[in-house]
Amino acid sequence: MRSVCVVGLGLIGGSVLRAAAAAGRDVWGTTGSTADAQSAIAEGFTVVDVDTALRRAAAEDALVVIAVPLPAVDGVLRKVGDLAPECLLTDVVSVKAPVADAVAKYAPSAQFAGGHPMAGKSVSGWEASAATLFDDAAWVVTADEETSLFAWREAAQLALDCGAGVVPTTTQEHDAAVARISHLPHVMAAVLAACGADGGPLAMALAAGSFSDGTRVAGSRPELVLAMCEGNRPALLDAVDDALGRLGAARGALASTGSLGATVQSGHSGRVTFDSYRTAGRAQAMVDLAGEDPMEELRLVGTRGGRVIGFDGDMAVVTLPVLSD
Amino acid sequence: MRSVCVVGLGLIGGSVLRAAAAAGRDVWGTTGSTADAQSAIAEGFTVVDVDTALRRAAAEDALVVIAVPLPAVDGVLRKVGDLAPECLLTDVVSVKAPVADAVAKYAPSAQFAGGHPMAGKSVSGWEASAATLFDDAAWVVTADEETSLFAWREAAQLALDCGAGVVPTTTQEHDAAVARISHLPHVMAAVLAACGADGGPLAMALAAGSFSDGTRVAGSRPELVLAMCEGNRPALLDAVDDALGRLGAARGALASTGSLGATVQSGHSGRVTFDSYRTAGRAQAMVDLAGEDPMEELRLVGTRGGRVIGFDGDMAVVTLPVLSD
Repeated sequence: MRSVCVVGLGLIGGSVLRAAAAAGRDVWGTTGSTADAQSAIAEGFTVVDVDTALRRAAAEDALVVIAVPLPAVDGVLRKVGDLAPECLLTDVVSVKAPVADAVAKYAPSAQFAGGHPMAGKSVSGWEASAATLFDDAAWVVTADEETSLFAWREAAQLALDCGAGVVPTTTQEHDAAVARISHLPHVMAAVLAACGADGGPLAMALAAGSFSDGTRVAGSRPELVLAMCEGNRPALLDAVDDALGRLGAARGALASTGSLGATVQSGHSGRVTFDSYRTAGRAQAMVDLAGEDPMEELRLVGTRGGRVIGFDGDMAVVTLPVLSD
Repeated sequence: MRSVCVVGLGLIGGSVLRAAAAAGRDVWGTTGSTADAQSAIAEGFTVVDVDTALRRAAAEDALVVIAVPLPAVDGVLRKVGDLAPECLLTDVVSVKAPVADAVAKYAPSAQFAGGHPMAGKSVSGWEASAATLFDDAAWVVTADEETSLFAWREAAQLALDCGAGVVPTTTQEHDAAVARISHLPHVMAAVLAACGADGGPLAMALAAGSFSDGTRVAGSRPELVLAMCEGNRPALLDAVDDALGRLGAARGALASTGSLGATVQSGHSGRVTFDSYRTAGRAQAMVDLAGEDPMEELRLVGTRGGRVIGFDGDMAVVTLPVLSD
């Protein structure tokens, strides 16, 4: 099994290190946090400085996993370009276009496929990490026109070894999707929380379930929310424009006819759709990776809401959602 | 103890009937649902037709509780005006201005104070009702300029007997507050759910905690959401305008400077404020109901986020939130 070098040992990076080790891989890591490094070493993990970690990755042909916050990605990739320029490379950052751009700029010879495990916790840092964090989670591995099947499959195998299912999709489609289902929810929660608090002590005393649920993620650490949302600016702008249009239409209908019927019905329909995916059955299929255009076949799996759950020789084993009516 | 006549035996009305009976009151009810009536009778409750129920309320000087959906309130109040025109009257409808207007129109001689228990469930109907539904919940009893202390105290005593704490406030302040913390959350959840579902199967496959929490109430029955939101049109328009302004400002900042700092910080601050009210300490105080302007004193309790938790002779025992820094 290919060894793994994890750069950044917070919640996600630490969990990748633990899960890859638990899967039997040779692993080592590096982190700018002395406290996280000491904790990981005390647990028996190998943690070294970033130069040593990347030199070892180059020497052992390891898979390098970038697991630092988006603002730190450029700096790490400069190091990769210097010390392990042709390495196998993936990342676990929540926005994919800026990482792909930085790879093209600083480590253009790396064999890269981007990654994003859809797993998290309200707490962060090594101490919160766990080998089981990714169990049954969706883990995007980007399959762009320029992505090599080799790099894609190496990144996908890591995700599978960590217990996740692999969602193949393009950088652009990933960023558009997470803008709607992850970043827009943070913006809406922030707007709702501010509107509620503006109602003063009476409103706060009366607030219950609907306000509490709708504003939960507004309690997340602002710097993490900002790094994520601001890093996905073009796609988030599209999503916010969609929300503005719908909220404006609701306002107009309420003011003119007094009806919120279209708004509430489309929202109910959207939530029912979401629930139907969560409870969907799963049909198994295969993608022949030795076929004519395997990357296009893989992208179709992602577009249809499916996942790669394993490899069998040159075949990718796939599950696709089967919605009940 | 004053007997209680409950009109409408769904989740809230049924729970009032049960809780008032459990508190030792003589209770009877009426409902348009044969199934609910049969279930309640099978459990030993007295359920009669609406005319009989209201005639008995007039004869026994009972407190009449309107517990029907907003669209049915006018019809019930016409009956009250005919059959029990001078009765003690309250309600448990989630919007207060339309009920107050209808009382003024159809039962102007009733001794009325409006009510709204901030309790609910995702399920509805008599079968979902419970005597404990209101335990520790906030229960608004409206204290307007024209509200008599006598009517207010009778409605408040019912809320206390049902296990709730009483929040005194005006009809207008109630409707403005719930627009922000109950109705706007439903509109925002509907918008978010529609925007997410528009992302297609890929977005649905990647959606997790933030989308799930942010859209939960979009799964509520549309007819209940519409009755609630559309019934609070003027106050909800103000709240939606506030949300539109904030969302538009977020859009503008993201497009121009790339920063969501102001949006995310104000949202985080709002959520922290909400949490601080949920974990606040409580200081006890008294309001002298024999004093100069007891209704104004009571309204101040609501404005400050406090509750009446009991009566001791002419004194209302009050708790006020004490926020830690």
